[in-house]
Amino acid sequence: MSKLPTAAVIGLGSMGWGAAVSLLRAGITTQGVDIREDVLEAFAAKGGDSHACVSDACAGADVVLIFVVNGEQAEDVLFGAGGAVAAAKQGTVFVTCVTMEPSRAVDLAQRIEAAGMLAIDGPVSGGSAKALTGEMTIMAAGRAEAFDAAEACLDAIATKVYRLGDEAGKGSQVKMINQLLAGVHIAAAAEAMTLGAKIGLDLGMLHEVIQECAGNSWMFGNRGAHIVEGDYTPHSAVDIFVKDLGIVTGEADTHPVPLSETALALFKEASAAGMGREDDAAVAKLLATKGGITLPGMA
Amino acid sequence: MSKLPTAAVIGLGSMGWGAAVSLLRAGITTQGVDIREDVLEAFAAKGGDSHACVSDACAGADVVLIFVVNGEQAEDVLFGAGGAVAAAKQGTVFVTCVTMEPSRAVDLAQRIEAAGMLAIDGPVSGGSAKALTGEMTIMAAGRAEAFDAAEACLDAIATKVYRLGDEAGKGSQVKMINQLLAGVHIAAAAEAMTLGAKIGLDLGMLHEVIQECAGNSWMFGNRGAHIVEGDYTPHSAVDIFVKDLGIVTGEADTHPVPLSETALALFKEASAAGMGREDDAAVAKLLATKGGITLPGMA
Repeated sequence: MSKLPTAAVIGLGSMGWGAAVSLLRAGITTQGVDIREDVLEAFAAKGGDSHACVSDACAGADVVLIFVVNGEQAEDVLFGAGGAVAAAKQGTVFVTCVTMEPSRAVDLAQRIEAAGMLAIDGPVSGGSAKALTGEMTIMAAGRAEAFDAAEACLDAIATKVYRLGDEAGKGSQVKMINQLLAGVHIAAAAEAMTLGAKIGLDLGMLHEVIQECAGNSWMFGNRGAHIVEGDYTPHSAVDIFVKDLGIVTGEADTHPVPLSETALALFKEASAAGMGREDDAAVAKLLATKGGITLPGMA
Repeated sequence: MSKLPTAAVIGLGSMGWGAAVSLLRAGITTQGVDIREDVLEAFAAKGGDSHACVSDACAGADVVLIFVVNGEQAEDVLFGAGGAVAAAKQGTVFVTCVTMEPSRAVDLAQRIEAAGMLAIDGPVSGGSAKALTGEMTIMAAGRAEAFDAAEACLDAIATKVYRLGDEAGKGSQVKMINQLLAGVHIAAAAEAMTLGAKIGLDLGMLHEVIQECAGNSWMFGNRGAHIVEGDYTPHSAVDIFVKDLGIVTGEADTHPVPLSETALALFKEASAAGMGREDDAAVAKLLATKGGITLPGMA
């Protein structure tokens, strides 16, 4: 493509912000949308075009990336009053990067295409640090024309773009399985570190050694550090996993997912205890309280 | 040390075999002990000294590495009739590489030292492939004299030797936490792959993509491949995790370990269904059967 597309990013949370900044770094004119004034100011300071209004941002965009929190919000920004689809020009590519029920991803893609647009079912993974550096992984499904038109934008935000099929749904299915593992691994990291503290192990040493052993996971490395430091500043919040593991258990229906159910119960209990907006590693504080011990960062 | 020590390895299972072969490769004279005739023949063919009898193997050894299956067996080969401690010369270093209750590791080390020997509480991790190449990780605790005398042997079998303290127990504590994570991660991999199959995902693709995402774990990469290939040849068996997660829940006592309990219940159920000696990834077949689907390698 000789001319770079114009992008819009709807939702400048931790992942959307990283995507928007990565688009700017690639020289792509980018419209950013959020409801938070301070975030819009910060985005303008980075050289982006800031909008409080979805339809304004989407009017001139070639590629619209949706980074809102859940499927309901995605449906609302796409098709609600002042929504993106009605405002966009024909042929615009909509990339839904939100973790949602695969069945909903299929439905939204069909409605986007029925409106004369192109759709990519494209949830992302990698965490906020990799989002910032344009090194996310995208689990994507959609037609070849959509990928062709969105290529420059996807390459700007991700080092791995998996094309999982022509039809929407496969991206959200793989993301759902990823979230099953991620949620169980966070809860397992919390259980491991809390039991380690209970039996008197030094948590920093435990965190270091396990990362060289077969018990390691991406989440143990990442969230384990939050537990060692007692830092529960939310990169991804407890309530995200109440949502995502709820999608897993809901879509699994009668299929057995006992570990997902056990982890979901912990995230729900942590949320009910007032930790819903803390970092998801806060399930460790829940387990510590139940076990009668004190972790770093606990009063 | 100008002169290399003589080593004995008791138990030539997947990890012990790898350790014994790595010792030979380092030029260390190594006595191997096993009850299986074919394994002893294979070890002799590699240049080792094969013994069916523990006391014969330990009489001339400077360092004895114990790689039997569990704490009961370790106690038996150390202190039972024809045991290693009675046969060894004063000052021999005994390295217990077996996963066992931390309290038992402390007890064995105290009895080893009371007999005039040196003790290292040194469980290992890394899997059979890394054992074969001398790249295990050792979680070790013991006195400086013991580490000095065993150094050449430990360096021959491991790329990482963590010294976790002067007193026995810390090694087994860290290993127990590692097994908590490993067991939960194997069960989570089984749950993820089985749900993926249920919703129609290609398992090879799912396994590849997740390894680039935040849902990855060492076990998902390693055991997930067994599930994709339908190969349940035991590298580490279901019954090992019945034992190891049983240690976790037993030592945790009243401290909450809900994910360990959920995973343990799955391994127990798989063992009761006749899969105890299959690869631990066989919990996937249990979940598949419960969910009414067929994985690769299932009839």
